[in-house]
This record gives sequence, C-alpha cells and structure tokens, in this order.
Amino acid sequence: MSRPSLQTVGEAAFARCDRVSAELLALTYGTFVRQLLLDYEKVADVNAQLDAVGCNIGVRLVEDFLAKSKIAACNSFAHTADVIAKVAFKMFLGVTANVTSWSADRNTFSLLFDDNPLAEFTELPEQCPDLWYSNVLCGVIRGALEMLNMKVGCTFVRCKLRGHDTNEIRVSLHELLAEQPPQADD
Amino acid sequence: MSRPSLQTVGEAAFARCDRVSAELLALTYGTFVRQLLLDYEKVADVNAQLDAVGCNIGVRLVEDFLAKSKIAACNSFAHTADVIAKVAFKMFLGVTANVTSWSADRNTFSLLFDDNPLAEFTELPEQCPDLWYSNVLCGVIRGALEMLNMKVGCTFVRCKLRGHDTNEIRVSLHELLAEQPPQADD
Repeated sequence: MSRPSLQTVGEAAFARCDRVSAELLALTYGTFVRQLLLDYEKVADVNAQLDAVGCNIGVRLVEDFLAKSKIAACNSFAHTADVIAKVAFKMFLGVTANVTSWSADRNTFSLLFDDNPLAEFTELPEQCPDLWYSNVLCGVIRGALEMLNMKVGCTFVRCKLRGHDTNEIRVSLHELLAEQPPQADD
Repeated sequence: MSRPSLQTVGEAAFARCDRVSAELLALTYGTFVRQLLLDYEKVADVNAQLDAVGCNIGVRLVEDFLAKSKIAACNSFAHTADVIAKVAFKMFLGVTANVTSWSADRNTFSLLFDDNPLAEFTELPEQCPDLWYSNVLCGVIRGALEMLNMKVGCTFVRCKLRGHDTNEIRVSLHELLAEQPPQADD
C-alpha cells in the first residue's frame, strides 16, 4: 500500500479537529495584538511578546498535533519542514504552506503562504509599520519544535499586511537537542 | 417545501465558513485573558474588558453572520434567541446552545451550553475565582444584537470553570432601537 501524501495526512488531521470559524480566531487574535500595542511602547517589544506567547502555545499544541496527525517522527529536517507546511498548517489554520529557499547547508528553509487566517480583515495600524502582525506563528513553530528536540530560529521576513506579495517565515535549525531521559517518579 | 430547521441552517452556515482548529482559538483566547489579568488589578475590570472587546467583535461578526446564515430577519425575540443558540453558536463556535428559562414577560432568556470551545484546556487561576473567563461571549452577543437594533443586557450566570454543572448566559431585551435612516452622502 502506498504511503498517503502529507497533503492527505494534513486533511485527515484537520478533519479530526474540533473546528471554529476562522473569522472568530482572526478577530480574537487582532484584539490580543491591539492589547499588546497598548501595553508596550515599542513595536519591537510587541513583536517579541507575540513570539514569546506563540512559543507557549506551540509547546501546548504539539501533543495534540502528534495525536491527531499520527506522525511518529520526522527522519530529516527536510521532512520536518514538509510536515509543518502540509500537516501542521493545515491542521491548525486550515491552509497549507510551501517549503522553498533551502540554504546550501540544508539547515534553513522558508515557509511561504498566501492565505493567513490570522490576518484576515486586518490592516496594519499606520503608526506600526514595523509590526510583524502574525509573529505568534514564529513562536508556535519554535515552541513546538523545541518539544521535539529541535532548537530553531524563526523569523518573519515577508508579510502581506506590509505590502509584500506573500507571507514568508524563515526557519533555521540551530541545534538538535539530546533526548531528555525520562524523569524518575520519586 | 418545508422550511429547514435552524439546526440545519446552522450547519450550512458553519460549512460556509473558513475554519481553524478550536484548540488554536482556545489557546489564543487564553493568552489574551492572561494578558488582561496582568494589565488590570481587579478581576471585575477584566470581566468588563472582556465584555467590551467582545462587543467590538460582535459588531464585526454580524455582517458575516447575515451573509453566511442567509437569515434575513427575526420576527420575534424568541426567534432571535433560537437563531443565536442554533445558528450563531454553531457557525462561530461549532457547538449549539439551548434556550431556556424565559421570564414571564418573554423579555429574558438563558442560553445553556455544555461545550465551550473557548474554555477547553483551561482552569481558572486560583486567585481569580470571580473571573467570568468566557465573558467575551456576552459582549459578542450584545454587540451583534445592537447592530440589529436590539439593545440587550447579557451576563454570565454559570460557568463550568467555576464548578457549575453547565454554562449559562442570561440575555435581557432592554430596548428595540428605531431603525437608523440611511445617511445622506453629502
């Protein structure tokens, strides 16, 4: 029997999720970003905070991801990239991304995606041209991969809200962490 | 041809929505609530702020609701109650509610719902027993109905996170607002 494509795996995982309206998520997320813009003086701090809370979300999501996607392990960083783009994006956001622009050492790639449910119905506030509005996604990827023993850097480099032609997140593998031995119970 | 049940209308509207994972919404919303708990000293102020931002979300959601549900107008407050419970809840949250406990004057009812996607994976922080965690929903209902010329009061009275046996929102019609005449363009 041939192995199902990652696209199919992503669709099956999405079907296994409880789902809510994307517009409700977009408006809830937008409300959160606005709150941070009130709370922090510098847009750079808002970007950092979005990344930090995203990391916490990623740490929480990864378990659900493994359970619903039924993906046991990735055998290479290239496989990891494809799983993020075709399965994780689909499962949580209902869209898929494309993996491109590998570095020569195969440690860095880009995720490109045109549809970004977080940023629907949104315009960047005029006074915040430096906001990476969807920066939470970088944190989510970073947090989830750290739970899988991959330390990565993750940065937005293009965002349609800034007038770019697509959305692009650059992901770099910094370190493969050693498996933690299971903790004794006492 | 018999008219489709509101349940069917709700399911069709839900199918017309772009959808995302409920867990992602729950974690995003939880992150927002946590931020407000950091920002405000009093839990009562957090409850009020959740209601206020919910109202803004409701004002935004109502247009999408009318477009996707294809419901033109409600002919009574009882019909409005059923549409909220069976169509709007389904379309945005993927769950339905029950309408109960009408007041004698038929101006006040309760929405009961056991499944609350906003509060999945959540526990009330110990120091916040007075938090109405999902109070944003009261604001959403209030804001949406105001756009439809109904001024309502909306309060959480039971919440499973507080140990109650179900979730209950009480909705009271305060005033039917006069239709605004269309504004002249000059």
